[in-house]
Amino acid sequence: MILSPGATIGILGAGQLGRMLAMAALKVGLRTHIFAPEDAAPAYDAAAARTIAGFEDEAALARFAEDVDVVTFEWENVPTSTVEFLAERAPVRPGARALALTQDRLTEKTFLRDLGHKVAPFVSVEDAGALVRAVAELGRPAILKTRRFGYDGKGQSLIREGSNVAAVHRTLGSAPMILEGFVAFEREVSVIAARSLEGEIVAFDLCENEHERHILARTRAPARVSAETATEAKRIAASVIEALDYVGVLAVEMFVTRDHHGHEALIVNEIAPRVHNSGHWTIEACAVSQFEQHVRAIAGWPLGDPVRHSDAVMENIIGKEVERWSGYAGRGGGLHIYGKRVARPGRKMGHITSLSPRPSV
Amino acid sequence: MILSPGATIGILGAGQLGRMLAMAALKVGLRTHIFAPEDAAPAYDAAAARTIAGFEDEAALARFAEDVDVVTFEWENVPTSTVEFLAERAPVRPGARALALTQDRLTEKTFLRDLGHKVAPFVSVEDAGALVRAVAELGRPAILKTRRFGYDGKGQSLIREGSNVAAVHRTLGSAPMILEGFVAFEREVSVIAARSLEGEIVAFDLCENEHERHILARTRAPARVSAETATEAKRIAASVIEALDYVGVLAVEMFVTRDHHGHEALIVNEIAPRVHNSGHWTIEACAVSQFEQHVRAIAGWPLGDPVRHSDAVMENIIGKEVERWSGYAGRGGGLHIYGKRVARPGRKMGHITSLSPRPSV
Repeated sequence: MILSPGATIGILGAGQLGRMLAMAALKVGLRTHIFAPEDAAPAYDAAAARTIAGFEDEAALARFAEDVDVVTFEWENVPTSTVEFLAERAPVRPGARALALTQDRLTEKTFLRDLGHKVAPFVSVEDAGALVRAVAELGRPAILKTRRFGYDGKGQSLIREGSNVAAVHRTLGSAPMILEGFVAFEREVSVIAARSLEGEIVAFDLCENEHERHILARTRAPARVSAETATEAKRIAASVIEALDYVGVLAVEMFVTRDHHGHEALIVNEIAPRVHNSGHWTIEACAVSQFEQHVRAIAGWPLGDPVRHSDAVMENIIGKEVERWSGYAGRGGGLHIYGKRVARPGRKMGHITSLSPRPSV
Repeated sequence: MILSPGATIGILGAGQLGRMLAMAALKVGLRTHIFAPEDAAPAYDAAAARTIAGFEDEAALARFAEDVDVVTFEWENVPTSTVEFLAERAPVRPGARALALTQDRLTEKTFLRDLGHKVAPFVSVEDAGALVRAVAELGRPAILKTRRFGYDGKGQSLIREGSNVAAVHRTLGSAPMILEGFVAFEREVSVIAARSLEGEIVAFDLCENEHERHILARTRAPARVSAETATEAKRIAASVIEALDYVGVLAVEMFVTRDHHGHEALIVNEIAPRVHNSGHWTIEACAVSQFEQHVRAIAGWPLGDPVRHSDAVMENIIGKEVERWSGYAGRGGGLHIYGKRVARPGRKMGHITSLSPRPSV
């Protein structure tokens, strides 16, 4: 089903990604209806309609499905039961399969490995005893992660030489976990790719991410890697998006390692089945942003040209940094503030993207 | 008064300019409240709040003023009485003076001439007899215009050799008019300038406009004029915006003439006290668009850097052309559809901006 201008996109989740999706929809003449449980959240002010209800409220979900022409999500921890309920009533893009697969680190890593991509070694961890065996198998350092609901470093803990394995296990609670071998990477990079309803795949240029305290601090486009590595990264992303029969924008995070011969290699870290913080630079540096690309894909429209006209550096504005909004506004570049009322520590409050002339090609 | 993120901008008028202003406000964390008489209009879906009421409804205006932190307008034919009523209750930027001056072609032309700028020769026309004398004074061809409420060629008529002057006068009704001498121009150009609350002035690059049937069809940035002419055009715009003690974005339309020595000269045609169709290319070609520049100015924020990173061609999508939205979406470039329900002939339904690499500098 193809949406005409004036049609309505339903978005599950009301954070800044939903806000920027709603703005991209407005740009091309589409309406949005946000469904989320929060009383106040960034996306509401950008949408033509909003439903404030829990993701388990089937009456509210049924009314929402009546009002919209397609459903998408801006948050990968929407319950799959919610998406399955909606999918009986309206097209959901991307679908429940990509969502379910990426909600669980174990199924996600297994999928990536089975697709033939390099991933960090991993072992499923059911209990503290299994963790001891897993650490013996993968060695130290290794990273223990809950299989579900992790983001921005939440739900993970590093096991070093000397760490008390049982104690680390207790800090993450009793949820199912996965132990991942440590990757000594040179850079973290990501590809923001899109697949249309007709199966066309395009990707924005590979970009490079710097984290501080487990939160994305900065993204540079292009990534400082060889042309071969950049091409290979896009090829990996295309293989993932194709294998998932995906419609919409998807982010693939990878590590770049360098061997003692100086050769770069890519290890796939994780998939986000949605627009992604590391793609915000596309708003200023490309004629069509990742947000509009997602809107175009789920609307059944032709994808936009992902060409990058400038180099870009995107910096997140975290927590109380947003109080310096006036200083950010006084710098060149594209400033974005998400409209969150409370600047909690570690909370993404906005971002700013600086452009520089692209080297002549 | 300086607005903080989370504050609310009140916008009078609900057309596509209001829609794009509201989106620019959202981008930097500001809310908008649209006040307009129409039941359905492009800006409503982009705003956090809306008041649908007449511009003479003082009770509604008073409530609106209570809810907003600053008032602006996206349409220059808002009654000045409305703006004066609001100005007693909230800051209005730009103010009633610029609005009143530009609502009347006679006061506008007189202001520009008195400021020392070249304008087409003009004569005030009170009645049919005055028109006969005016045509004798300025010669033919000349253009008869109503002093107020003209746009997209409405309220104007060309007096050629052989035209029946009395008949032309009757077609425009009984409103006060102005006769303007015909300018044999080579190009139409415009400057989109901004002035901050602190008096800083910046301008986007001079652009060049092509009209078809009196409606803007296409804008190119940069304009194909000499560097001296481009600099002089920005100087003229700065002089106008300064003389008006203006806060916000203002457009100055000019004609480029060429004498028999090949020298270019600029004749100022008109001022629009608002964001302008000929500035839409700034959304894709600059890090800060004309819409955000206006938002920054009226919020008391630092202005953005107006540097253009690419060459741009903006084409309007008029009337039924919007039915080819899928074809437009399939072209490269930035597509904008305004969400108007009915595609009347001559109605601006959207636009598309194509970028090309900027020649190396």
